[in-house]
Amino acid sequence: MSEAEAPRRGRRRKDAGDARSAILRAASAEFLASGYDDTSLRAVARRAGVDPALVHHYFDDKAALFAEALEAPVRPQDIVRLALAAPRDRLGETIVRAVLEAIDAPATRDRMRQLVRTALGHDFAARMLRQFLVREVLSRIAGELDAPDAELRATLAASQIVGLLVVRAGIQAEPLASAPVDEVVRRVGPVVQWHLVGFGTVDTPEARGE
Amino acid sequence: MSEAEAPRRGRRRKDAGDARSAILRAASAEFLASGYDDTSLRAVARRAGVDPALVHHYFDDKAALFAEALEAPVRPQDIVRLALAAPRDRLGETIVRAVLEAIDAPATRDRMRQLVRTALGHDFAARMLRQFLVREVLSRIAGELDAPDAELRATLAASQIVGLLVVRAGIQAEPLASAPVDEVVRRVGPVVQWHLVGFGTVDTPEARGE
Repeated sequence: MSEAEAPRRGRRRKDAGDARSAILRAASAEFLASGYDDTSLRAVARRAGVDPALVHHYFDDKAALFAEALEAPVRPQDIVRLALAAPRDRLGETIVRAVLEAIDAPATRDRMRQLVRTALGHDFAARMLRQFLVREVLSRIAGELDAPDAELRATLAASQIVGLLVVRAGIQAEPLASAPVDEVVRRVGPVVQWHLVGFGTVDTPEARGE
Repeated sequence: MSEAEAPRRGRRRKDAGDARSAILRAASAEFLASGYDDTSLRAVARRAGVDPALVHHYFDDKAALFAEALEAPVRPQDIVRLALAAPRDRLGETIVRAVLEAIDAPATRDRMRQLVRTALGHDFAARMLRQFLVREVLSRIAGELDAPDAELRATLAASQIVGLLVVRAGIQAEPLASAPVDEVVRRVGPVVQWHLVGFGTVDTPEARGE
């Protein structure tokens, strides 16, 4: 490890791999002690005995640190970024496809399913995971929607996505559990689209009085 | 207790209240030992030491017995019956309203929320509760749909309803947790409608090539 990378105020010096895993261990402890919302990167650095700059050096932000501490195989903020970069009329489809690919990929499937079960529990870990999702996923999407009811829209979209996760990956109810991704995207994408941007603007048979 | 009501082959005689609660206790034990699908009313009667006719006298069917053994404040089969009696174009709205009323009513709210949490667990009770819902709710609705993809439609509708239960009653994420029933019905009813009967038949901007 070069001198430039060394934490200047650390209680002890660590090589790069050690420092990074010390930060992750400290982050897990800090998240568990304080919850997602009340954990600061400064407190994580203090607990790890490293300079706060080193935390920023290894991790983009609190969300990235949390996703790594959880060993989440997919960073929810990447799904958000992907979704927000999509054309507005493909928002629902893009989100549903990204979520399905995350829970279906052989490399990530088991850990993702485990996280779905954790998030549905009623212990502290579950509450923290949900704080994280509300803060980093729902609020960011709502912030982009630019509608007076953006937060309601975001929680409604989340209700369809959470239900899809529960039925497909948690309960594994057939035939939804094994339906091809494209089929599920065709059926659920328009629902998420409707919740996020469609309600009140989309032309429905009901709106036409049919 | 009149002679006519007495179980003829029971190991001991019980008055009506006793017999009914003995059946309920036996049913709980039998469901826990064998799961929902593999429990028969005959086995419940045997365990309770009463004539099978007496089980049928007190309870309409296995679903009714299960709902009572669970102390479920709402019988899912009543929601199904209500939904299936609704005009076909109001199926989604009717189901969503019935579910919301069940989880919001002051008298039933706490027990319903507890059941939502139980159903989401990964122990035997959770699996049994889900067997019950699949058998008594999803399969019955699918059976009425008369479409080749009826079972996929039923699981997709369930995904939106389960997600709504989780976000509104489980996680209690705002603003969805406190949104008025009518507002939620207006937004989620069309989604359940779309999943059950709309997909491929409803006129969407996409279908019109917009």
